[in-house]
Amino acid sequence: MTTKVDVNCDLGESYGHFKVGCDAEIMPHITSANIACGFHAGDPAVMAKTVWLAKKNGVAVGAHPGFPDLAGFGRRFMELSKEEVTNIVLYQIGALGIFARGAGVGVQHVKPHGALYNAAAETEPYARGMIDAVLASNSRAVLFALAGSRLARMAEKEGLRVAHEVFIDRAYRPDGSLVSRAVPGSLIGDARLAVRRAVRIVKEKKVTAIDGRDVELGEVHTICVHGDAPNAVALAGSLKKALLAARVEVLPAGLLV
Amino acid sequence: MTTKVDVNCDLGESYGHFKVGCDAEIMPHITSANIACGFHAGDPAVMAKTVWLAKKNGVAVGAHPGFPDLAGFGRRFMELSKEEVTNIVLYQIGALGIFARGAGVGVQHVKPHGALYNAAAETEPYARGMIDAVLASNSRAVLFALAGSRLARMAEKEGLRVAHEVFIDRAYRPDGSLVSRAVPGSLIGDARLAVRRAVRIVKEKKVTAIDGRDVELGEVHTICVHGDAPNAVALAGSLKKALLAARVEVLPAGLLV
Amino acid sequence: MTTKVDVNCDLGESYGHFKVGCDAEIMPHITSANIACGFHAGDPAVMAKTVWLAKKNGVAVGAHPGFPDLAGFGRRFMELSKEEVTNIVLYQIGALGIFARGAGVGVQHVKPHGALYNAAAETEPYARGMIDAVLASNSRAVLFALAGSRLARMAEKEGLRVAHEVFIDRAYRPDGSLVSRAVPGSLIGDARLAVRRAVRIVKEKKVTAIDGRDVELGEVHTICVHGDAPNAVALAGSLKKALLAARVEVLPAGLLV
Amino acid sequence: MTTKVDVNCDLGESYGHFKVGCDAEIMPHITSANIACGFHAGDPAVMAKTVWLAKKNGVAVGAHPGFPDLAGFGRRFMELSKEEVTNIVLYQIGALGIFARGAGVGVQHVKPHGALYNAAAETEPYARGMIDAVLASNSRAVLFALAGSRLARMAEKEGLRVAHEVFIDRAYRPDGSLVSRAVPGSLIGDARLAVRRAVRIVKEKKVTAIDGRDVELGEVHTICVHGDAPNAVALAGSLKKALLAARVEVLPAGLLV
Repeated sequence: MTTKVDVNCDLGESYGHFKVGCDAEIMPHITSANIACGFHAGDPAVMAKTVWLAKKNGVAVGAHPGFPDLAGFGRRFMELSKEEVTNIVLYQIGALGIFARGAGVGVQHVKPHGALYNAAAETEPYARGMIDAVLASNSRAVLFALAGSRLARMAEKEGLRVAHEVFIDRAYRPDGSLVSRAVPGSLIGDARLAVRRAVRIVKEKKVTAIDGRDVELGEVHTICVHGDAPNAVALAGSLKKALLAARVEVLPAGLLV
Repeated sequence: MTTKVDVNCDLGESYGHFKVGCDAEIMPHITSANIACGFHAGDPAVMAKTVWLAKKNGVAVGAHPGFPDLAGFGRRFMELSKEEVTNIVLYQIGALGIFARGAGVGVQHVKPHGALYNAAAETEPYARGMIDAVLASNSRAVLFALAGSRLARMAEKEGLRVAHEVFIDRAYRPDGSLVSRAVPGSLIGDARLAVRRAVRIVKEKKVTAIDGRDVELGEVHTICVHGDAPNAVALAGSLKKALLAARVEVLPAGLLV
Repeated sequence: MTTKVDVNCDLGESYGHFKVGCDAEIMPHITSANIACGFHAGDPAVMAKTVWLAKKNGVAVGAHPGFPDLAGFGRRFMELSKEEVTNIVLYQIGALGIFARGAGVGVQHVKPHGALYNAAAETEPYARGMIDAVLASNSRAVLFALAGSRLARMAEKEGLRVAHEVFIDRAYRPDGSLVSRAVPGSLIGDARLAVRRAVRIVKEKKVTAIDGRDVELGEVHTICVHGDAPNAVALAGSLKKALLAARVEVLPAGLLV
Repeated sequence: MTTKVDVNCDLGESYGHFKVGCDAEIMPHITSANIACGFHAGDPAVMAKTVWLAKKNGVAVGAHPGFPDLAGFGRRFMELSKEEVTNIVLYQIGALGIFARGAGVGVQHVKPHGALYNAAAETEPYARGMIDAVLASNSRAVLFALAGSRLARMAEKEGLRVAHEVFIDRAYRPDGSLVSRAVPGSLIGDARLAVRRAVRIVKEKKVTAIDGRDVELGEVHTICVHGDAPNAVALAGSLKKALLAARVEVLPAGLLV
């Protein structure tokens, strides 16, 4: 049996004079780009440029909406109502969508960013707000959600296409949730280890949790690589090679779910 | 001969806790709503609400992009490149567009706001940037431009649909340009006078300039009423009545150009 | 025995074109003005103007720092570290301070706004962050804190001057905390009732909680009136009259603690 | 005769997650730090940190206020009134001042940033607005102004302390103004050439203009090195060495004017 998986990365996170990431170097190694939409990072010029870069590399384009918190890079939790979540997410999808259509591509997927991702994974109004936004925007767009999360289940029940996502450079708790970035050991800096974990996740649907136990991850459709890690390009490159070597087909999530 | 004209108004200019305008009261009296897109005013919740309000009133929806200057309400000139203009306008059209599509309507038109409107009317990179944005977004959207402006001519040459716009509560210079808001006498506070001017503009294509001379305005497709004037609702109401009484058909610009 | 109390109000909450409140009408009826500092509301021009207005009315000037969330008017909780709280509060005190000094007055007090006020009242990093900011800014400034709150106790232990604050238009829980604005009955719209409660609070240090029981409030130094209530001016006026009639001296918090 | 000069650099231009510059490496080579104040760059945490870094290095602290345009890094001209300029500059000086006082240092100087610097150098309302802000903030603060500019003359006439500033990595026009960054050849990338120019400017008050002619620069009190140039640290280091070798004393502007 051929196994298939998508590899995604957060990109387009520069803002005006402020340059972040190495988008051009990462692109050849991924299949889905989560493009920041101007709230936590990204600006209209960066969005335009990143969409074209993705297209040139045959990478599928997704909206990467975040909290309206540029100062905190969308990593600080904000207390929003369900309606507020829906409206800010719709706004950001719409903004990215026009650049995507301008480049002749569509918005394949929507992946919430940072603290919004975490809040939506398990908390009712954020999960519901995200789902309503994707439903309102275009029910064919794939929602990227933490594998095994409440959001993933809720979205599937609503008939959304959902890509279950795993993180190869983050430690897992035994219940399948991510260890907070604030905890020592939460980031897996060793690229070879991260790649080995990734291959195992895809082939066996299992990952070793921070306490050494095995976690069953269920379905896995997309692997996140972080573009802002120091070794991001090398990691992304070796991940793709390792996946191909393990006879895993790497292709955009829109073709998988 | 039946004459036809559109009546437009800037709406959706509240922002979070900050309430502006009397959108619900104005809507019954206009045919096109220029909805702020979050840069100079407006926020995602306001945009969503205003689009639905327009739909309910049978009013056509347009994007009203402005400079990224909430503190200045988009009324302060900013030095932007042509590409910056195109990208910020596209972004704003995209953001509004998703709410419009969500409500089952389209983006009928694009009207730049405030200092961007003025800059685009006569200055090359702003005019060109606006045109490129409308072309990239959807070439069927109507661009609202000051009647007789360079922007109107340039956009028509590019094959855009253009609505020539007049202002009934603003004084004109003998060359057909608007007298700056900073000049005493630039605002016509007398609603009855404003309405009489409007009817004459539509029927005779002429307006009396600030020096008393008549200005030929050429084509006129849409009349702007300002939603933030103290007597805005009364003015809009009496304008529509006067136009109908003068056998002018009042309908959305998208049906006129 | 003459009882003394301060009456404070949040002012200077306009932002550019967006006008909020009726500052000039409220000023004659209060003794301390909490002036927004540009993060949740307020802008440099509004701050300059409001400081002068306070001075002209003999009202003491205070900084009213909030979360960096103009879109949410500082009413949405944000997850910040203690250091982030200290730095954003210091920044805002500094910004207001220069306008205060320019008008020949000082910053009498610091009162956090909205969700920051609530978070600081009971939650460690927010309380500690607030205290560190006031200590770093000028240890003579009075910190306004919810009467009986953990913040009040912590700040007093650090040697800060603290004004215990009560709200006359908000319902109390039996434990002395405020009923959330989201709960029906949390806002006391009847001005006469609110004023009666205020006089009792000052004279007897007691208020009737939402369940009908009496709450002992301990020390009370300052009463908050809300400038954005529909009857704010009338309420503030009748409050001052009622306090004077009850032989309560009304004067700035800086003279009380 | 011993000649004296100050060396200044724009620092603290990071913003949240967005990192800019190499402040710690530059500090040992300069005598005055122009610290961004949160409008075009910088945030409260960055300001706090940069003030302490300056203090540790014995570098004098200055406010570096810019246009409220984070997206444009303060490099896009904005049309502001004199009062708006005064108020936004005062606000930024106040915000920086509280961190400076917290570190036990004062605000030695004020240097406008980017497009505000250029507008203030020659244009009435911007120059006047800057001067009013410095007067209102603390008349002992030194205003950094382009050597020979109208701003420098106007400020001296008002009794302000003014440091005439030169740029060693920017080309000059024969009239003593700077060649725009947009013009090829406007940036002098060769560090050795830049340093030679600097020594000549200080010793002879002359610089070679872009057309090869010599420009008399009059008084020169401070030399700007750009922290964001690729070779900024090396340039700053060799500049200081070359100045000392040429028997030029390098010390903060506050001791020179």
